[in-house]
Amino acid sequence: MSDISQVKALVFDVFGTCVDWRTSLINDFTKWSLTRGVHADWTALVDGWRAVYAASMDEVRKHPEHGYVILDTLHRRSLEKLVAELEISGLTEADLLYLTMGWHRLYAWTDTVGGLTRLKTKYIIGPLSNGNVALLTEMAKFAGLPWDLILSAELFQHYKPDEETYLGAARLLCLPPEQVMMVAAHNHDLKAAQKLGLKTAFVARPTEYGPLQKYDMKATGEWDIVAKDFGELAGRMGC
Amino acid sequence: MSDISQVKALVFDVFGTCVDWRTSLINDFTKWSLTRGVHADWTALVDGWRAVYAASMDEVRKHPEHGYVILDTLHRRSLEKLVAELEISGLTEADLLYLTMGWHRLYAWTDTVGGLTRLKTKYIIGPLSNGNVALLTEMAKFAGLPWDLILSAELFQHYKPDEETYLGAARLLCLPPEQVMMVAAHNHDLKAAQKLGLKTAFVARPTEYGPLQKYDMKATGEWDIVAKDFGELAGRMGC
Repeated sequence: MSDISQVKALVFDVFGTCVDWRTSLINDFTKWSLTRGVHADWTALVDGWRAVYAASMDEVRKHPEHGYVILDTLHRRSLEKLVAELEISGLTEADLLYLTMGWHRLYAWTDTVGGLTRLKTKYIIGPLSNGNVALLTEMAKFAGLPWDLILSAELFQHYKPDEETYLGAARLLCLPPEQVMMVAAHNHDLKAAQKLGLKTAFVARPTEYGPLQKYDMKATGEWDIVAKDFGELAGRMGC
Repeated sequence: MSDISQVKALVFDVFGTCVDWRTSLINDFTKWSLTRGVHADWTALVDGWRAVYAASMDEVRKHPEHGYVILDTLHRRSLEKLVAELEISGLTEADLLYLTMGWHRLYAWTDTVGGLTRLKTKYIIGPLSNGNVALLTEMAKFAGLPWDLILSAELFQHYKPDEETYLGAARLLCLPPEQVMMVAAHNHDLKAAQKLGLKTAFVARPTEYGPLQKYDMKATGEWDIVAKDFGELAGRMGC
């Protein structure tokens, strides 16, 4: 909707926008369980895990006196509760670690790497995710995401959509907010970024939450770009 | 000297270790001055600039009440003093910006990119430099340094060799210090890292400071690896 010719860097939401966390985790845990001999409804576990994601970050936000807690740790805490609720038995400490680190082993959507590779020729590209630095770094190597740098909520000790994350990213890049574009499959993420002056691009991921997804099926704000995938985004950005 | 089989990440000093700042800057400024029509002894400027580098960071260290100041800003302040001292006249604001941003346009030593590319196949690799995040990010794109992530003194609000930098890098990587290897052409950098438990690798860059270099011609500590270049380092690390 506005001038995007001044954009120098694109920062990306990761879970759902760049990688298909749901399919990746369900497939990973299903294969693993066959050899490990643990039986569970992994789809229920994965969906339940993501369902408590926002609440787990809200706890950090509400209790700054406890200090910042990285996402790996929140994932582990949520996992322990879910394992009990779903009555999954026989999991060892190594198993819980394997499952938690599943969030480091996520596959990109098929258009992600090609689009990012094109965008990287002209722009600085990086994640701006609630994942911690180690998680995002390992995921990039696993999925082949060609980031220039890793920008994480951990660096700002605040989770998105707190403004410290978007403004912190612009500050580290030494760019004014309007020269940074936030890319996400989630309207609320873009709304927070836009309010602070960042440019915005929406790429729908209508199967992120599975076949019954109800939210974020389409753009609901006046975003600078709405593209069907990262290839179209790269083209619209002149790459 | 010790077991390096547990190393998961290598972090690199950048100025001098990965890139040839002196030749890059002298060549860049000399070419630029021909078209710009400004005359100066650029070798004197570049050597003088680097000579006040440590002192400029000491000022930040001594005055925490002034807050952390990024290296781009320290470079700019030092430049203004040197321009006056060397009586270089006719520089505009745009010229001063161009010269300061010269530190973002540095070329790698000839063995750097090949060695890093090999190391990246097996390890997490990143700079751990006093350069600010934007400087290191732009330099990586300019010089083709294939970092997995950018680790900078700026993230820790402390300059090397303050311990916050080495321990902060290990913390963000979620690794114990002994699983992180510091690579540098400077013995004092490795000494600080080793004291905190990091593994160490020395690569001599005997022309970093020009033909009359006197320091860091060879390893002066018990480093885990001493290699002649990044190719040998990659080989020693099993890549």
